Order: sequence, then C-alpha cells, then structure tokens
Amino acid sequence: MKVFASIAAAATLIVFAAPASAQFAKPEDAIKYRQSALSVMGTHFGRIGAMANGKVPFDAKAASDNAEIVAEMAKLPWVAFGPGTDKGGNTKAKPEIWTEQVKFKEGSDKLVAESAKLAAAAKTGNLDALKTAFTATADTCKTCHDAYRNK
Amino acid sequence: MKVFASIAAAATLIVFAAPASAQFAKPEDAIKYRQSALSVMGTHFGRIGAMANGKVPFDAKAASDNAEIVAEMAKLPWVAFGPGTDKGGNTKAKPEIWTEQVKFKEGSDKLVAESAKLAAAAKTGNLDALKTAFTATADTCKTCHDAYRNK
Repeated sequence: MKVFASIAAAATLIVFAAPASAQFAKPEDAIKYRQSALSVMGTHFGRIGAMANGKVPFDAKAASDNAEIVAEMAKLPWVAFGPGTDKGGNTKAKPEIWTEQVKFKEGSDKLVAESAKLAAAAKTGNLDALKTAFTATADTCKTCHDAYRNK
Repeated sequence: MKVFASIAAAATLIVFAAPASAQFAKPEDAIKYRQSALSVMGTHFGRIGAMANGKVPFDAKAASDNAEIVAEMAKLPWVAFGPGTDKGGNTKAKPEIWTEQVKFKEGSDKLVAESAKLAAAAKTGNLDALKTAFTATADTCKTCHDAYRNK
C-alpha cells in the first residue's frame, strides 16, 4: 500500500506539473513565448511611460488603450516559466526563478494586480493618477528584473 | 495657391503617416514588436488548432481563453508595418506589403474579423463551430503568409 501511495502521489505531482510545461513542445518555445509577451507588454508600457514622464503629450485615450494591453499581456508570460525552461534558448532568466517559485509567483501576481490598477487609473483620464500607477507598476517590473533577470 | 495646396496635401500625408511609424523609435523595434505579437498569437492559435484537429482533447474553457487572446493579439501587429519598416531587422516581410497597402490592410482586417468570430464560436462550447471558425481563420493567416511572408 505504501508503494501504491507513493505512485499515486507521484502521479498527482505529474498531473499538476503538466499544464505549465505541456503547453510548449520545447523549452525554446516557452522562452520565445514569454520573451515575446514581455516585449509586447514593454512596448505598450513604454508608451505610457513617455506620457507619464512628459516626453510625449498626454493623450488619455492612447494611455487607456495602451494600459488595457499592458494589463492583458501581464497575465501571459508566467506559465512559460515552467519546469525545464531555465535553459534552451537565449534566456536571461536567473536560476532563482525555479528555486524561489513562491516569491517569483508573488512578483508576477503583483504585476498583474498593478497593471490592472494602471488600466483603471488610465481610464479616469487623470494624468496624476496615471503617473502614480505607472510608477507603482514600473517598481514591480524592476523588483523582479533585479532579482530574476540577468543583465 | 497650387504650391500651397501641394504643401498642404503633403503635410496631410505626413500627419496621417506619422502615427504608424512614430510609435517605434527604430525599424528594428517595429519588426521585433510585430514578430512578438504574431508569435504570441500563433502560440494560442496553435492550441486551438490542436483541439480542432483532435490532437489534444477538446476543452471548451481552454479553447475560449485561447481564442480571446488570439482575437486581442490579432489587432496589434499591423501598425508596426509602417513606412520604413521593410528593412532593419531579421524580417521575412515581402516588399509587396508596402506596395499593396490596400490589399494588405484588407488581409489584416479580415484576420481581425475572423479571429473575433473564432472567439465567439469558442464561447459557444461547440466543437464543430470551433472547427469551422478555426479553418476560416487559418485560411486568412495562410493567404497573407503566401502573399506577404518570405519562407
């Protein structure tokens, strides 16, 4: 029975681990996917930053459109940091992502939450609200990049 | 007055042409952006295809989630095919994109429309509806890839 229980436990682990990695045929595919999603997000986030920092004139509609995309893109990359995707492509991901899974998940959850707040702030059309939310979101990006991304 | 009208016409052209290219500092940035957006879209579209083609079991919730992302991603890449972005990065884009702008726009509009239909079909939870919409969307991808993407 003990052996049986171990097999059952192992099977459960495999089932739970499967969805994250099984979505990508190869580690390279996962790496390309997460880099692509983060790149698209970064482009739109940068456009909000340009307005928040006064480099381009504030356009409430554009800010809101960009923030909506950021909030949607922010949900995507994390599933592609599954087991075995630490190597295989041209990745800057640090090994700590896989040894500090709880902390990494907290960071990605925080980005999803902050970018949703950013989208809500952008929708108000108030530049000061946008600036505050932009800074909070940018801090979230930086915290994770410092901890989990090689230069 | 004739010169004036020409200048005015030219200025109008510049104003209308500006948003597409001005969003990216360099052609490389535009190329990376559109490739990233298309890559993310392709990943999610491929997951629907695996279900439509019976390679993985049909999961109505997963199909709908993926189709929603496809429909959103389908709107993004086209602005990054602006003037001057035909060269600069590792692009497979054919020059015809810039000489057949009306036809290219028709193709991208069709993808946006078909992927919206795909998302609606996925939401019904009906596999046959999903298959039909998947095929229509895939045909739209193929038509443009054949015409506008180098192998």
